[in-house]
Amino acid sequence: MATINEIAAKLGVSKSTVSKGLNDAPDISREMRKKILETAVELGYVNKRMHKREQKLCILIENMDYKSPNQFGHDIVLGFKQMAEPDGWIVDVVPVDTELQKGSPYGVFMMEHGYQASFVLGFSLLDPWMQEFRTTRVPTVLYDNYIKDNPHVASIGCDSQEGFELAVRHLTQLGHKKIGLISGPLDSYILKARYNAYLGAMEKYGLEINENFIGLEYYVTESTRKYIPRLLAEGVTAILFSHDIRAISAITYCDDQNIRIPQDVSLVGCDDLPMASYTQPPLTTIRQDRLALGKCGFYALSCLLNQVVIGSILLRAPLVVRSSTGPAPAAP
Amino acid sequence: MATINEIAAKLGVSKSTVSKGLNDAPDISREMRKKILETAVELGYVNKRMHKREQKLCILIENMDYKSPNQFGHDIVLGFKQMAEPDGWIVDVVPVDTELQKGSPYGVFMMEHGYQASFVLGFSLLDPWMQEFRTTRVPTVLYDNYIKDNPHVASIGCDSQEGFELAVRHLTQLGHKKIGLISGPLDSYILKARYNAYLGAMEKYGLEINENFIGLEYYVTESTRKYIPRLLAEGVTAILFSHDIRAISAITYCDDQNIRIPQDVSLVGCDDLPMASYTQPPLTTIRQDRLALGKCGFYALSCLLNQVVIGSILLRAPLVVRSSTGPAPAAP
Repeated sequence: MATINEIAAKLGVSKSTVSKGLNDAPDISREMRKKILETAVELGYVNKRMHKREQKLCILIENMDYKSPNQFGHDIVLGFKQMAEPDGWIVDVVPVDTELQKGSPYGVFMMEHGYQASFVLGFSLLDPWMQEFRTTRVPTVLYDNYIKDNPHVASIGCDSQEGFELAVRHLTQLGHKKIGLISGPLDSYILKARYNAYLGAMEKYGLEINENFIGLEYYVTESTRKYIPRLLAEGVTAILFSHDIRAISAITYCDDQNIRIPQDVSLVGCDDLPMASYTQPPLTTIRQDRLALGKCGFYALSCLLNQVVIGSILLRAPLVVRSSTGPAPAAP
Repeated sequence: MATINEIAAKLGVSKSTVSKGLNDAPDISREMRKKILETAVELGYVNKRMHKREQKLCILIENMDYKSPNQFGHDIVLGFKQMAEPDGWIVDVVPVDTELQKGSPYGVFMMEHGYQASFVLGFSLLDPWMQEFRTTRVPTVLYDNYIKDNPHVASIGCDSQEGFELAVRHLTQLGHKKIGLISGPLDSYILKARYNAYLGAMEKYGLEINENFIGLEYYVTESTRKYIPRLLAEGVTAILFSHDIRAISAITYCDDQNIRIPQDVSLVGCDDLPMASYTQPPLTTIRQDRLALGKCGFYALSCLLNQVVIGSILLRAPLVVRSSTGPAPAAP
């Protein structure tokens, strides 16, 4: 760990200037303070006094709504706070966008706000801070993203492989053989993981893997309109979806087209959004327990803060069987 | 969750008898108590009062020494206690053998002793209780073993894939191309995991996978004598070992045979036993941080006890580079 002396030497300023910068003294310029903090981060300096004074964690959140209970992020945030606040932490929820990330390096942002560690939700592979996570020394837990080789960063998420295996097993028990996948394009860690989990499960159960059974496209409604008829024309009798929202779009489409669920085609979602139990028919889906994910995020951060150098925690991904899956239709 | 009424109905005894059995009252026979406990386990009954009275966890340990600091299990046990005891738990370390497991079902054993959850070290795939772990409702964390689909059982261990990739990357940077593996037979979860990690790492770095580069045999010294000459005759210039103990045996053998380490062959162990830094030359090895493993075991149990249904936690597996690895020798 770097000392104040090393920061002072690198910047060619006095020790007392560095100390003032680190403690946000009023008689030092904003620019000098930024330089000091940036250098402190660069050298791996940890300001113990600041951490003792303010026990603060943050949840960095992007591409994810969380304010109302029906939104995906709500219970994740709640679960995290439920663990962290009784343990004496202040938790700030910080909405993040690309602008904010470009304006300040991650380490500097964390130090400026006195955050000791962060829990990161909804980042894409293209987010600027994702690069910094490769080398940061700030304890950081990523939901559904993974960074190799950095002992200060851990990942949590649901076990896609287990979830997809349960879904495919359920469908094979119902007599389905041609099982398709409709997903967004593979530009995120989690979509790649679910895609590979689909392939792995199909292989495990000895089912045909065929690119004509798979549709990858960004826009939900277009993807539904384009791929449902194509997959059905290929003889697919059951479809897995990378997200509930895509499965729910498919339910609406099938209703319009007089395609019966599950008599003509079985559908399986992924996430178990609150609305998944209210669709017509209610959706069979691979569950993400979001409250548990939030709590797990805090456990993972606690590990990192206690020198328990974990890489990843995977939660179980149970299959919730409702009415959108049924016996495979007889061959025409 | 089952009630006392259901246990009483199933056994055809009175509620008060069941209550006495669960509370180990003196005026009830050992046989009746055992029946009551077995039935309670079968029905998923949880005795809250017992749990409130005695906050007890156990570490079930087999095939692993732990009493002296130089032994593999010592720091795992210490790490677990370091987390659990300040949190108010009594922790018993319970050496287990096949006899004990045959004498009592796992769930009954746990309930009889008032253990709320267990951390399981050193079990093999053949241990009788491994079967019970598939269906138990007792929160259970396994080190280096994995049970599918049971939300009450989680796994912890080091990330073999990451460790072997780091080792193979290190060796390729030193110019090695033919890299071998010497391991025990693939009759345990962790040996299979390490074997697959070796294959995965070789594939990732585009290196030749050749069964003649691999030696799998139970007895350490025999395996060394048999496979070191064979692998060297195949042109192998670096060897990975499933355990430090095998690498250390190889160092002794090479010393006897005037095979120079690392000039003639580079060796990489797995575990970072305390003695790995005192061999001649000191051993490059994939580290298992045993104190962190113990602490992680407690975090995993805490998750299960708080309805955070995790499947697995993987710790980072850093490569500790010492002197048993060096540049690949020039081709003869």
